Formats: sequence, C-alpha cells, structure tokens
Amino acid sequence: MPEKQKVCLAYSGGLDTSVIALWLIEQGYEVVCFAADVGQDEDFDAVRAKAEKLGAKIYIEDCRDEFVKELCFPAIQCNAVYENVYLLGTSLARPAIARAQIAVAEKEGCQFVAHGATGKGNDQIRLEEAYYALKPKIRVLAPWRMPEFYEVFKGRSDLLDYAEKKGIPVTSTKSKPWSMDENLAHCSYEAGILEDPDTTPPADMWKLTADPLSSAADEAEDVTIEFEKGIPVKISAKSIGSETEPTKLFLAANALARKHGVGRVDIVENRHIGLKSRGCYETPGLTILRNAHIDIEGLTLDREVRALRDQFVTFNWSKILYNGNYFSPEREFLQASIIESQKSVNGQVRLRLYKGNCMVLGRSSQTEKLYDASMASMDEIGDFEPTDATGFIKVQAIRLKKYGQMKAEKGERL
Amino acid sequence: MPEKQKVCLAYSGGLDTSVIALWLIEQGYEVVCFAADVGQDEDFDAVRAKAEKLGAKIYIEDCRDEFVKELCFPAIQCNAVYENVYLLGTSLARPAIARAQIAVAEKEGCQFVAHGATGKGNDQIRLEEAYYALKPKIRVLAPWRMPEFYEVFKGRSDLLDYAEKKGIPVTSTKSKPWSMDENLAHCSYEAGILEDPDTTPPADMWKLTADPLSSAADEAEDVTIEFEKGIPVKISAKSIGSETEPTKLFLAANALARKHGVGRVDIVENRHIGLKSRGCYETPGLTILRNAHIDIEGLTLDREVRALRDQFVTFNWSKILYNGNYFSPEREFLQASIIESQKSVNGQVRLRLYKGNCMVLGRSSQTEKLYDASMASMDEIGDFEPTDATGFIKVQAIRLKKYGQMKAEKGERL
Amino acid sequence: MPEKQKVCLAYSGGLDTSVIALWLIEQGYEVVCFAADVGQDEDFDAVRAKAEKLGAKIYIEDCRDEFVKELCFPAIQCNAVYENVYLLGTSLARPAIARAQIAVAEKEGCQFVAHGATGKGNDQIRLEEAYYALKPKIRVLAPWRMPEFYEVFKGRSDLLDYAEKKGIPVTSTKSKPWSMDENLAHCSYEAGILEDPDTTPPADMWKLTADPLSSAADEAEDVTIEFEKGIPVKISAKSIGSETEPTKLFLAANALARKHGVGRVDIVENRHIGLKSRGCYETPGLTILRNAHIDIEGLTLDREVRALRDQFVTFNWSKILYNGNYFSPEREFLQASIIESQKSVNGQVRLRLYKGNCMVLGRSSQTEKLYDASMASMDEIGDFEPTDATGFIKVQAIRLKKYGQMKAEKGERL
Amino acid sequence: MPEKQKVCLAYSGGLDTSVIALWLIEQGYEVVCFAADVGQDEDFDAVRAKAEKLGAKIYIEDCRDEFVKELCFPAIQCNAVYENVYLLGTSLARPAIARAQIAVAEKEGCQFVAHGATGKGNDQIRLEEAYYALKPKIRVLAPWRMPEFYEVFKGRSDLLDYAEKKGIPVTSTKSKPWSMDENLAHCSYEAGILEDPDTTPPADMWKLTADPLSSAADEAEDVTIEFEKGIPVKISAKSIGSETEPTKLFLAANALARKHGVGRVDIVENRHIGLKSRGCYETPGLTILRNAHIDIEGLTLDREVRALRDQFVTFNWSKILYNGNYFSPEREFLQASIIESQKSVNGQVRLRLYKGNCMVLGRSSQTEKLYDASMASMDEIGDFEPTDATGFIKVQAIRLKKYGQMKAEKGERL
Repeated sequence: MPEKQKVCLAYSGGLDTSVIALWLIEQGYEVVCFAADVGQDEDFDAVRAKAEKLGAKIYIEDCRDEFVKELCFPAIQCNAVYENVYLLGTSLARPAIARAQIAVAEKEGCQFVAHGATGKGNDQIRLEEAYYALKPKIRVLAPWRMPEFYEVFKGRSDLLDYAEKKGIPVTSTKSKPWSMDENLAHCSYEAGILEDPDTTPPADMWKLTADPLSSAADEAEDVTIEFEKGIPVKISAKSIGSETEPTKLFLAANALARKHGVGRVDIVENRHIGLKSRGCYETPGLTILRNAHIDIEGLTLDREVRALRDQFVTFNWSKILYNGNYFSPEREFLQASIIESQKSVNGQVRLRLYKGNCMVLGRSSQTEKLYDASMASMDEIGDFEPTDATGFIKVQAIRLKKYGQMKAEKGERL
Repeated sequence: MPEKQKVCLAYSGGLDTSVIALWLIEQGYEVVCFAADVGQDEDFDAVRAKAEKLGAKIYIEDCRDEFVKELCFPAIQCNAVYENVYLLGTSLARPAIARAQIAVAEKEGCQFVAHGATGKGNDQIRLEEAYYALKPKIRVLAPWRMPEFYEVFKGRSDLLDYAEKKGIPVTSTKSKPWSMDENLAHCSYEAGILEDPDTTPPADMWKLTADPLSSAADEAEDVTIEFEKGIPVKISAKSIGSETEPTKLFLAANALARKHGVGRVDIVENRHIGLKSRGCYETPGLTILRNAHIDIEGLTLDREVRALRDQFVTFNWSKILYNGNYFSPEREFLQASIIESQKSVNGQVRLRLYKGNCMVLGRSSQTEKLYDASMASMDEIGDFEPTDATGFIKVQAIRLKKYGQMKAEKGERL
Repeated sequence: MPEKQKVCLAYSGGLDTSVIALWLIEQGYEVVCFAADVGQDEDFDAVRAKAEKLGAKIYIEDCRDEFVKELCFPAIQCNAVYENVYLLGTSLARPAIARAQIAVAEKEGCQFVAHGATGKGNDQIRLEEAYYALKPKIRVLAPWRMPEFYEVFKGRSDLLDYAEKKGIPVTSTKSKPWSMDENLAHCSYEAGILEDPDTTPPADMWKLTADPLSSAADEAEDVTIEFEKGIPVKISAKSIGSETEPTKLFLAANALARKHGVGRVDIVENRHIGLKSRGCYETPGLTILRNAHIDIEGLTLDREVRALRDQFVTFNWSKILYNGNYFSPEREFLQASIIESQKSVNGQVRLRLYKGNCMVLGRSSQTEKLYDASMASMDEIGDFEPTDATGFIKVQAIRLKKYGQMKAEKGERL
Repeated sequence: MPEKQKVCLAYSGGLDTSVIALWLIEQGYEVVCFAADVGQDEDFDAVRAKAEKLGAKIYIEDCRDEFVKELCFPAIQCNAVYENVYLLGTSLARPAIARAQIAVAEKEGCQFVAHGATGKGNDQIRLEEAYYALKPKIRVLAPWRMPEFYEVFKGRSDLLDYAEKKGIPVTSTKSKPWSMDENLAHCSYEAGILEDPDTTPPADMWKLTADPLSSAADEAEDVTIEFEKGIPVKISAKSIGSETEPTKLFLAANALARKHGVGRVDIVENRHIGLKSRGCYETPGLTILRNAHIDIEGLTLDREVRALRDQFVTFNWSKILYNGNYFSPEREFLQASIIESQKSVNGQVRLRLYKGNCMVLGRSSQTEKLYDASMASMDEIGDFEPTDATGFIKVQAIRLKKYGQMKAEKGERL
C-alpha cells in the first residue's frame, strides 16, 4: 500500500467504528469520517468531537429528506415488505447513506471507502453493492472481513481493551445484550440474547414505541392520511394538526404511531447470505402509512394492475432492496412500473390508532371513480343485466365441466 | 318445463331462500332444501321446521370437519390472503357447501340445484362453478338472475309482502342495514350502509369479536400453537387447556381470538365480476393460526422455497379460491405444491393476544435445523470465512459496476 | 327497437358479413359498413362495390401504420408469444380494427356496432371488449349469438341460399375446407378439416410462405436488422436493399421470410372461452423480427431486467392481447414497463434465411457496452479476481450445505 | 497440509486436467481421477491409460442413464429453456457428474474434490454447489482460482510447456480456436474467436449436426414421439424403427436430428457470475423431444395449469439448473410441481424433420379428452349457448367500460 492512501469511513461514533478509525490510521491511511443523519436519535456534536479526537476529519450529512422521498415513499407506493412481515427499515436507509458517503469520498479524493458492518450480515452487501455501482473504481475496506483485523479483535473485550489503551472514550460502559440500528423509519434489534428465536425480547428493549400492554395511550386517536399518486401528501390528527412536507409528515406519522404502540414485529428471516437470523423491528410511522396506502388502493386501483403489481413489483422491489441492489437496472425498471401503477392512487384514508392497533375507519377519493356504489349494490340494476352473469359463469364452466367429466370417468374424487 | 322436476335448494332459513323455496314450488318444482352447517350461529331445528312448513324436504349436513380440514388448513398452509387483507372466509366455505349440496342432489335425483345468491356477487360464481365441476350435467336455477323472479321481487318489501301473504314466518321483523354471512372461519358484512366506503361501521355491527377499545379482555393471554407439515395440530392456553382435534382446535382458536378482539378488517375489494365492493370481515381464529404459521415458516422453511411459494402459490391459490375455482385442475396443481412446500414446517409458536393484537413471543422446532444461531452469530466464525463474503459481494458487483460505468458515461444519475 | 337505428358493421366483403349486412337492413337498421385495411390481400374496390350494392354506405380505413407501430412493434419489443408458439397475429390486429370502427361509428352517430365473429371464438371477445372500452355506451350486435339469426342460418348452405335469393354475389362458389384470417402480420387457418388435430394440413393450404420442402428459395439469404430501443428501425438485404419506414420495413421482412418459408406453426391452443382449438399460422416477417429482437437483447439487456421482463411482461402482455384486453389499465401498465426495459436495446443482428430456417449469424451494438469480451475471456484477468468466485460459491453453499446435512441426517437421497 | 491428503479430480483426459492432475500430485496430494461418461464422443480407454500414466488411479462411471432419466426428461417435462434459447445442455449434465464424483470421493475416502473449470464460468459453480450439497464437509480445490496455479500457468503455452517437460502426452498438437463441451444432450462452443459476438462461427465448427445448407439430408423424414406423463416413452421413424428404453430413445432422437441439421443456436447469454458471454450450442435430440412435448401439451394440458407452469415452473427450474442449484430445496419443490402438472400429458406427436426444420404434422391422445372438436366447432351448438358468450363478454366489460369512461372524462386517448 502506498503511503497516505485516503479512506472514507462510515462512522457512527460507537465503539466499533472508533476502533476501526484508529486502526486504519495506524495502518497508514488518512481517514475521513462520514456520518449520515438518517433520523436516528444521536448527538452529532459528540460524534464530531469524537472523530476529531481520533485525528480524523468528519462530514456529517443530513440524508433525511432523500431517505424519505427516494426510499420510504416508493416503499409505501409498492407496499414493500420482505417475507410477509419485515418493512425493510434498515435496507431502505443504506442507499441514501452509501450515496452520501460516496459523494464525500469523491470530494475528498479517497481511493477507499470503509465500514464497520460484520461479515455475516446484510449491511456489508447493501453498502458495498451501492458503493460499486455508484463508483465502480472505488476500493472497499471491510475490517470485519480482514483477518489482520478480526483475528486481533475477536470480541467486544478486545475492542474495549484497545479503546482504553488508545484513549478512545467509550460512552456506554455496559453494552446492551443485542445490537441495534435506528433511523427515521425504524429501529432494529438482533444478535445477543435474541439469537435464541424462542427468547421473548424484554419489555424494555423496544425503544421507539410505547408498549401496547402498558405504556400506550389509553385513548384511541383518529388520523387522516391523504395520497397523491400513491405518495402520502398530508397527515392530520387532533394532537398534531396537519403536516404536508415529506419529512415532517413522516415524523408526524412516527409520533402518532409511537404513542399508540403501533409497528412492532419479531421474525426469523432469511438473510441474503443464506443464513436465517432473528430480528425484532419497530417501524411506527411506516406501518400506518403503508396500511393506509394498501387501503386507498382498494378504492382507486384497478384489479388487474393491482394483481400484476402485487405478484411482481412488490415482491421483487422488496427483495432487491433487502439484498442491497437498489442501484441496479432492475430496480430502475421496477420503479417505472411503480410510478405507472400509482397514477390513480389518489384519496384519503381515516385510521384509528389504539394500543398497537391501526384500524381503517373509511376512505374516499375526490377524483377516482372506479368504485361505484350503485353498480355494486344488490338492490339496483346497473349497467349490466343479472342475466349476463349467467353467461359469464357458464362460459367459465366449460373448462371445469370438461375436467369434472374426465375426473368422473376416471373415478377420481374432485 | 316438464312437471315435477326436482331442485335441490341451498336453504338458509332466511327470508330470501324461504321465498325462493315457495316460488319454486309454485313454478311446479319439487323442492329439496339443503342447509350446510359450516359453523354458523344457527338454530337448525328452526330451519328444519321452517322448510317443512313450506312443504319441502330438508337435509341438514354437518360440513364443519371438511371445511376445517380441506379448506381452512390448506389456506393456513399457504398463508392465503386476497388483496393483502381479506382472509377468504366466505370463499373457503363455498366448496364444502357445494359438494354437500351436490351429494344431496344426487341422492334425491334432482335435475336442478338452486341458490339465493345475488347476480352481482362472488358467491353465485363460487357455488355454480363448483356445481358444474362436481356434476357437469347439473342445471342451475339462480332466481336473482331470472327476470321472472327479480322483476317481481324488486326489493326487501316485495319479499316481506309475499311472505306475509303466503304465511312464511319472518323471524326478524327489522333487517339490519347490511348483509352478513357467517361460518366457522369468519363473519362478513357488506351492502346497505356499508356501501359508502367512508362510513365507519357502527360498533355493534361486529358480531364475533370483542371490541378492542371496549369489550376485549383487559388481561393479555398467551397461546401456543404447534404445527406439523404446516398444519396446526395443537393449541394450548391457560384458559382453554389444549385441543388437538382439527375442528375443536379451530374453535379454540376462535374462542381466544374473539375474546381478545383479534381479526377485524375493513376493505374495498375487487370482485370477480369486475366491480369494487366494500366488505368488513372478522376472522378471529384463522387470523391467529395464519400469523403463527407465517412465523413458524421463518424458522423452518428454506428461503428460496418460501420465495417461490409466496410469489406463485399464495397469490394464485388465493385468487383461485376467491374466484370460485376450487374444483379445478389449477387448484389441484397448486395443492401438490403446497404439500411439498410444507414438509419441513414443523414446530411451535408462542403468541400473546391483547386488545386486537396478536404478537409473536417466540418459536422453536424440535426437528428442523435450518436455523443455526452459532452460524448467524456475529461473534463466531462458523462454517465459512468472513473473507468469503468479499468474493460474494464482488462477484455480484461485476454486473452493477458495468452498469454504473455506463450510467456515468451517459451522465445519468444513479 | 326504434326505427332506423344505425349500426356500424365490421364488413369483410365475404359471404357471412354480406348476409349479416342485408339481414340487419331487413331488421330495420341503417347499416354503415366498415372495412379495415390491415394488410390483408384484398380487392377493396370490390368490397366497396359489394357493400354499396347491398345498400350500405362503406368506409374503408387504412390501419396498417397504426397496426405496425402500435401493435406489432410492442409485440416485438416484449417478444410476445402465446403458449410458447403462437405469435398473436390475429390478436394484434383487433385493437387497430376496433378503434377505427368505433371512430366510424362515432362519425356516423351509430348507436350500435356489429361484427360477424362466431360465438365460440376469441375474436368476438377481442372486438367487443375493445368496443366497450373505447365507447362504454356503445351497443353490440353479434348475429352469430342472436337466436333470431343463428337459428335461421344454421350452416353455410343457408347463407348461400339466402345470398342467392337476395342477389348477393358470392365470389368463390366453393369454400375452402377451413377458415382463414389474414393481415400484415400473419394468416391463420382453423376449423373444417383442421378440427382433427392429427390431420396434417395440405401443402396448398399455406398461403403466405413458400414451402420449405419444395418452393422455398434454394439460395440462403442474409438479412441485417437494426434496433433502437427495441424497435426495428432498419432492415437490409441484397435482394431488397434497405427499408426504414415502419410499414415498409415490416413488408420487407415479410417478403424475405415468405420467400424462404419462415414462420409456419401448427398448434392446439387454449381459447379465452375455455375450449381447446387447433390453429395453423404463418407469420413470416414477425418471426424474423422477433428472433432478431430476442438476439439483440442478449447483447444489450441486463440479466435481471430480462428475467423480470420474461416472467412478468412477456407472459402477461401476450395473455392480455390474446384475451382481447388491449384497451385496459393492465395493458397500459405493462406498456410502461416495456418501454423502460428497452432503453438499452440498441444494435443490429445479422440473420441467414434458408428453407424455413432463420439463423443468427452475429450481432453488434455501437452504443451498449454491457458485453465485455475481455472480462468474459477465460484468458484474461479482468476487474475481479478468480479467488472472488470462491467466496461467491461458498456463500451460496451455506444454505445448500445446511440442507444437504439435514437430508443426510434424515437418510434421504439428494 | 498434512501429507497424502486425497483428492478426487474430475478428469477429462485433456491437457488442462492432465496438467492439474500432475500438479496436484506434485503438491503432495494423492490423486484419484474420475471421468464421467455422459455420452460425449470419447475414447475412455485412452483416458484411463493417460490417467494411469500420470500415476493416478481412475474411475470411469457411466452416468448416461441417470443423465437422461433424472435430468433430461424433467427438462423436457417442463420445457426448460434459459433466456428463450439455450436448452441447458451443459447445466443438465453437471448434477449427474457431481453425484458420481462425490460417490467416488466417498468410496476412496477423499477429503477433497477438484475440477478444471475456469474462474469466470458457470461450471465451477454448478459443480461446487452440487459437491457442497451432496457432501457438506467436502473441500474443493479449483486450481484455476488458486494463485499458486494460475500465476504459473498463464495460458495454453505454459500448459503445453509443462506437459512436454513432464512427458504428458498431448493428443491434439493444435487446439481449436474455441472451447467445447459435449455430452449426450449437446455440444457447446465458446471462447476464442467466438468472443466477438459478431463473428459467425465457421461452418466446420459444428460437430454434432449436419449443416442445414449443405450436408443435411435432402429427403424429409417423419418421426412419431409418444409421451406418458410428459416423458417420451417411444420414438419411431422409418430409418430407425422404434426405441422405448430411455437412453436408446434419446440417442435415436439425436441420430435423427443430427442427420437433418436440427438444434443449432447461437446466443449471447448472461452467466450466473454476472458477465455476458457468447455461446453456440447444438442440441439435436433434445430439441425435437422438447418441441414434441410442447405440442402434446397443447392437446392434453389444462390452460390454467399450463399458464402457472409456464410462468412459474419453466422459468425457475431453468434458472435453478443454469445457476447450479439442482441439489436444493427449491428444485425439489419445483419437481413436485412438474410431476403434478404432467399427469395428463399422454399422447403422441408426429413431426417432420428437414434441413434444420422440425415441423409438427399432427398429434393425438388415446386417453385425454380435454380437446373436443365438436365443442370447438363453429358449426355445432355444444354444451353451451352462444348467448352465454354475451354475458361472458359483458361481465368482463364492466371493468373496462368504467376505465374507458374515466379516460374519456380525463380526455386521455385509450
């Protein structure tokens, strides 16, 4: 390695990346720290001070608007979900972080980027595939996959010893028995005691949301969410008034959902790397925005467009994000489909939040007229004759009769 | 029409089918009534008496075991759901009802079957496609699609007038302002005041489940559900002990979920006939069994099998059931896939029920070992080296780098 | 029926629609004939004369450009095919015909449109769904489904008798023992002697293409086809020079493929109506343009975009067209996907035509660089290390090893 | 490395694997060679002699029957194809080879297996994923990914020098300017001069099939292929009589197709590793068996089963095989679907082979009755009334009319 190669390190201010920063400096790199504000609960001044104390320059970039508009809103538009349950909170943040980090790396002329993600997880993949797509010539340092690092730092105590020896301040003397990742959309919990999939998380683990059983509000609260082309454009509730600006709207959804304990899940999921792992997630605002979106689609989206979208776009967009391929031709391809599918998704949904529940109360649309109460009504003859249904049924029965007859001839039970 | 043709009428004991029975008799048919016990809350002795009073023979068949084992359990095995929300409660009952009705028709030598479903709904299709597949030569009478019937009976008051004139006893003098359909799996509400999709259903509409806000139990309750090959084989909770027999197990799940207000949904859905309609459903037991099943799959089902199953089997099986094609080659084809997919879905899930919530507490499996905490652990080197992940990432990046480079050359933002 | 209602009849000049025209006039309608020039081999002056002789006004509209550009080119862009074999020649023409017919109906103020398609086929559906979407208030007359017509005209001899009696000139005294439909894209043959699926069509049935065994050219001929965004923009061959204008390009492809006997297929297909039927098709030009398009995609389209497009767009777009739902939200939705997928499909393909064969000789692209011979070369180290492949393989093996181990423990053969 | 570790090497007798064998011996391994007879044109006695001359024990295993029955027949049953064109000839052979190699490794107590596949191709993945699934504890040596090997042997001349120095006999003094892989199902050609995707392969490259333009037979020949449950069970043609035993039947199909020049393709495909590469393939017998299978499905397979199978099974089974995941839960899952889908695929197809063409002449089935000429006939009223089609069409139009009306109101062109 030539001397003073420059590396831009994704820096959180925590123990791992502080040790990595210093270790990289000791390896002869010039380290530029980069911290992304994606809405996590963080003292960024302290992060800055810590990086500088380590001898590194630091950039702290506010990625919240981009995160909400470019990642969370498309996720809502396509009802994104991984393996039926996980709303992709971490996956959604990575592209915004990687893009900002690469921008810093370019500005600073870094040949390398680095991160503190482990060698068995999804995040290393999500970050690095993004780095490579955004800047194909970039080189990546992932210390947790470099034997010269991980053979020295075998566990948390090695990190603590090193930090002590080097004078790196360690904020929490005692680590929590799980690891966390927080952003505007969610907080995740995994590893440690959660590795046993039958261990119920302790009640005080959950950081963002009130406990539906104990601390959630005793009064239900009604919320109205308005959509244009599938994007939430307004949220209203008595306790918060109204918000229309994307990030503020998202924060308002969070505040409401947190108070009412909405958005906790606990699953065993399949990582991209081929391992099963257990994760607990709380995703307050995104949960209610997504529920409202699913509901407004019922009123405003054509059946066949929905069916195609559900089978192909939702599944694949979610998988692509989970697997870290946001910056890819296939994601761009699906994005065009999402936009096209959402042209008619305009209207508003009324929800009631109460102790973990997010119940739909009703929905309406000023502009979309696919729903026609009089046609659906049992009591009115609309634009078609009841007798038409006879033909509809009988034509569809042609194939089934033929099949039934063959089964009967073969003596097989249908 | 030759005299005394015989018709087997799906008979509920309600106003509509009582009028239809008598009208058919007046048209010269010999009417054999058929009522299916699919677990609805019904006084079958009264139904029997009423049919006989009308001058019709009646068969009352207990279809509950078949309904649970042949319909509800496969639905759980494939996590069936229509348009993200509806658990198919009505759709699941129809094949069991149609099969029993056809058996009665055959026993009685009926040339016709009849039903009281309307001409704009899904149920006419579900029943008739099943009739035709099960007995291709059967002929169907659907009075709500016969002008000689529906032009006479234009609304509820015509039915009431006729009933009064003919001495047909009408149980409820005042109808509810919506229509309902109940069985072991659910109760549905639609039409009437619900036709305005923005009208919130009145609190006293919901029949099966306690209201999460008011009448649900104040104490949370934990339940354990055990699966073999994706089928629930045991349910246990303090208040109910244990149940293993399919129908009893299902009823126990219902009792628990009802008490805790679990399983209400409210949607605008797309009918097979091409209309949008609004439906409210409560599906207590099926909701918790399905949630538990989704969870145990996380622990025991291979990632790629799950992905294929989610995209193809879940979507299509649900659509087939919704559209009334249970008795079809495509459903049989998918059934084989379901069974194959569930070979490894063995284990138990612990849930907590509380005021509308159904929360996963943990899961375990004695036999399936795809989950390996030590491999997934961040702290242990398992069967692969962290450095392997580098190659995994870099090979996947080949394509993305190429793409990123092309985008850069074209000056397009990634 | 009020007197002198006006009907716009899709008129071919043949026996059926001539009889229908006169029959409609006799029923009291004012009949406006409409004939679409979609490239079939037809004497339109004779058609015009015949209609006028029947007492009907006639519009003859040239739909060829629209047919090529709006239907055939998107079909090429998504490699459309139904049930692996059928290139949708008839299906593609119907939307262009229906749109022009509705335009005439509007211009003439017709309350009705009519056609001569039979009651068991696909074309009635394709035409009518298009009519209803384009003009929801239009009313349709389909004499072959009207008992007052089909109970009078039970077969060809009844039509001939009527024609003779009414002085309708019948061009061919003897009908061919099958029915045909021709347009720019193809000619179809079905019914009659072809109804036995094991009857080989006589050699003289095929109208458009030379017989590979006897009349096809003895010399092979090379063709070059150039694409921009997946659309053929230039065709070149020695015998024809070059063509770039869409319809001329398409006709040139036809001329070449006809001469070399390319594009015959014979299948049993599944109609939308639920019946199986046997069809023979010749689709000369479209076959070679589609083959060339598939090939250029190999060079220029990303793998994952192709996979999504193949699974999702090709299958569904083809099914939608076959089933007659071109004018639908789902087709519009897929169209957006097609366009997005084809951004990079730029380049040229060289083909050799010879006695039924259409062989790829090579392909190139000036602008797209996803193919990189040096990277793929076995002899050069490109942008990634061979050792990276080890990690790629080992990470993918994690899941499979686990599975192999479980199978071994259970004593099951893998 | 402990002394005398044992390695089982996939050995072809060619230059690469001979050098590898000796190099491994020099590295201190005990080498057991393994050669699979998968139907390639090979002098296995010479292969044996050569291995023994190198000082290695050798096993030559006949994998042909397993290859045909376990791999080729399922491929035919699901119409397997990769990227529209490639029939997976190489991919299909790998699982049979890997299973036999692992069996030898187990018998000989080898800790390692080795192969001569390159570091950029698909075969390394296909072999190794199979090894790992079949024997999770096995260790793999892939010299073309080991720097200590590939940095010494940088090209063919290094291999030749080494061979000369070590006395390894080299059969062909001059290599062909491409690489080949042959088995019962196909022969592939890639690399070398073929790396330019616009270079037309020289006429003498193709090894298996006659040239349609020059050497193919001048007389057409008719063949009949019979299927049971989608599996070819009999082939008959004048020149060959009949064959019913799987491998003989496959060889007979090859002989016929080779003589008539059927089965050549030339594509640019997307490798699993993310690179595009150009491949030329000839797949004579498999091409005609697959074409016949597609055809018999038209007659005997239900429409909806076919649609699900096409979208879901064909695509994914093909991708799984291409990517080397035959021994996986997802392939087993799909296999169950294939078997279920093929229950009714019974009958025979008549084909005509002529100068590269494989034309369908007709098909029939003694047992399957889904095709009903009288119902499909235009001239007969079958089990349904033409008027039923009116209802079928009008009900489907409900949704489209609504859409057309909305578009019209918005002034948008449909």
